[in-house]
Amino acid sequence: MLYFQQMLGIAVFSITGVLAIKKADVDLFGAVVLGIITAIGGGTIRDLLLDLPIFWIADFNYIWVALFAALLAFFCTQRLQRRYRILLYLDGLAAALFGLSATEKVLALQLAAPLAVMMGVLTSIGGGIVRDVLAGRVSLLMSREIYATPILLGCTLYVLLRDVFPTIWVAGWIALVFTFGLRFLAIYKHLQMPAIFSTRQG
Amino acid sequence: MLYFQQMLGIAVFSITGVLAIKKADVDLFGAVVLGIITAIGGGTIRDLLLDLPIFWIADFNYIWVALFAALLAFFCTQRLQRRYRILLYLDGLAAALFGLSATEKVLALQLAAPLAVMMGVLTSIGGGIVRDVLAGRVSLLMSREIYATPILLGCTLYVLLRDVFPTIWVAGWIALVFTFGLRFLAIYKHLQMPAIFSTRQG
Amino acid sequence: MLYFQQMLGIAVFSITGVLAIKKADVDLFGAVVLGIITAIGGGTIRDLLLDLPIFWIADFNYIWVALFAALLAFFCTQRLQRRYRILLYLDGLAAALFGLSATEKVLALQLAAPLAVMMGVLTSIGGGIVRDVLAGRVSLLMSREIYATPILLGCTLYVLLRDVFPTIWVAGWIALVFTFGLRFLAIYKHLQMPAIFSTRQG
Repeated sequence: MLYFQQMLGIAVFSITGVLAIKKADVDLFGAVVLGIITAIGGGTIRDLLLDLPIFWIADFNYIWVALFAALLAFFCTQRLQRRYRILLYLDGLAAALFGLSATEKVLALQLAAPLAVMMGVLTSIGGGIVRDVLAGRVSLLMSREIYATPILLGCTLYVLLRDVFPTIWVAGWIALVFTFGLRFLAIYKHLQMPAIFSTRQG
Repeated sequence: MLYFQQMLGIAVFSITGVLAIKKADVDLFGAVVLGIITAIGGGTIRDLLLDLPIFWIADFNYIWVALFAALLAFFCTQRLQRRYRILLYLDGLAAALFGLSATEKVLALQLAAPLAVMMGVLTSIGGGIVRDVLAGRVSLLMSREIYATPILLGCTLYVLLRDVFPTIWVAGWIALVFTFGLRFLAIYKHLQMPAIFSTRQG
Repeated sequence: MLYFQQMLGIAVFSITGVLAIKKADVDLFGAVVLGIITAIGGGTIRDLLLDLPIFWIADFNYIWVALFAALLAFFCTQRLQRRYRILLYLDGLAAALFGLSATEKVLALQLAAPLAVMMGVLTSIGGGIVRDVLAGRVSLLMSREIYATPILLGCTLYVLLRDVFPTIWVAGWIALVFTFGLRFLAIYKHLQMPAIFSTRQG
């Protein structure tokens, strides 16, 4: 069940990854590589840092799903872009799911909660940042879009709730609704970081 | 024999790496670092992902060769640039060699063929991409140059032929001729990706 | 004692990291992430390459110190920028300290001296380079600022002196004074790389 959700998340990330760079003058090879990197980049860095086997080397299906989704996005760009708003929400859902499942993965290794939250956020946003760097785009670290903050808060909420509730599923669902809810609001209301938390003055 | 070829490949990559950024306002330290990164970057990422000892930590001669070649390129830029076309072909040959030998290295670890092809391509183009990112240049992922596709096709051909032929050398030579042949044509005829495989329209 | 110095170095790197990108339109999340990356990036790459446990996963206090320093830099930017010159010297001192202690760390693993010097330089400048790439800034590899060269020379001096002097502390102090002295001169006299070592002609 979780496996199926993660594959769906990989596909969504790969599609939004390709769409994000598709306006530029990029060929099939570059688009597919950047789509796959968007999908698997964050988890790859997490596994490298924790000295775990890279998840897509252990199970190559992740690459096939990301590859297929990237090809789809490359050849059906127009049709997908008309549904861009839905994709944006799906991307927020996938980011929340990735963040929370990575947090749980690290906690299950008996590592400390702050590290788990950090790895959750990294897993969630790492792939998109690597894609932006490779594509020469301004990464979300340099923007005021509210993308990472909901994941940071949601993963923190998860580690707190996990001690309270008897099963991790309850904590997981509450944190997922909270994380995605914040991101949903940010997209829906076009929210940006409050001025006190950003450097743009006046 | 293969060792000698790889050292030559390292030297060629390091030289073209320095020449690629030499027009910019870069000093000796930056040029040498970027040359070395071009030469060893792809193999380093491969070894990190596969959790192998980094090849140049196990044998520091790779660094010495890359360092010497980068120094040569820095101080003899003009002379080398007059031979830039020959260097471009040599770079294509080194890229083919790196891709195929990395593919074989992964197959020899009993890992799956698709992963081997992926690592072959990564080893071949990874260093140049890291150099471009560090130098603030547009990386080949965002161009329509036919650089990576021959390697992708060549490494795929290699894993197919390797099951057919009794010795890996026959498969290796056929794949090398095929890979370099495609790249040679691309340079010689100034080929670009066909429009259907790229996003530039009209 | 060395532990305390390293924590101070982490804090200084994190503060200068935030100040370096603070003029851009960056929010609290991006600034803090980039500050932490400046502080821990170099050592992280070193530990990945040497297949050691990442130092801040083994001891999360490094992250807390970097986080606190980054928050301080974000909210007290103006006050700190008035002391920017002092921070620049402190940054040079922290860079020297990081380079030399990383060199010693690698030598203590019985690895070769050239590798130790390389890892010393990487530890010292790696974080700032990753920050610049993520922030879309021109990295120091592409500038003529004299930042890395003193560290390269200082770490080389250290491995030479280490064989001469009975205790590593004497070698360490001499190398530290030498490294920081060069960097101090470069800042104080606004030195740039001599023309013969750089590509800008005329």
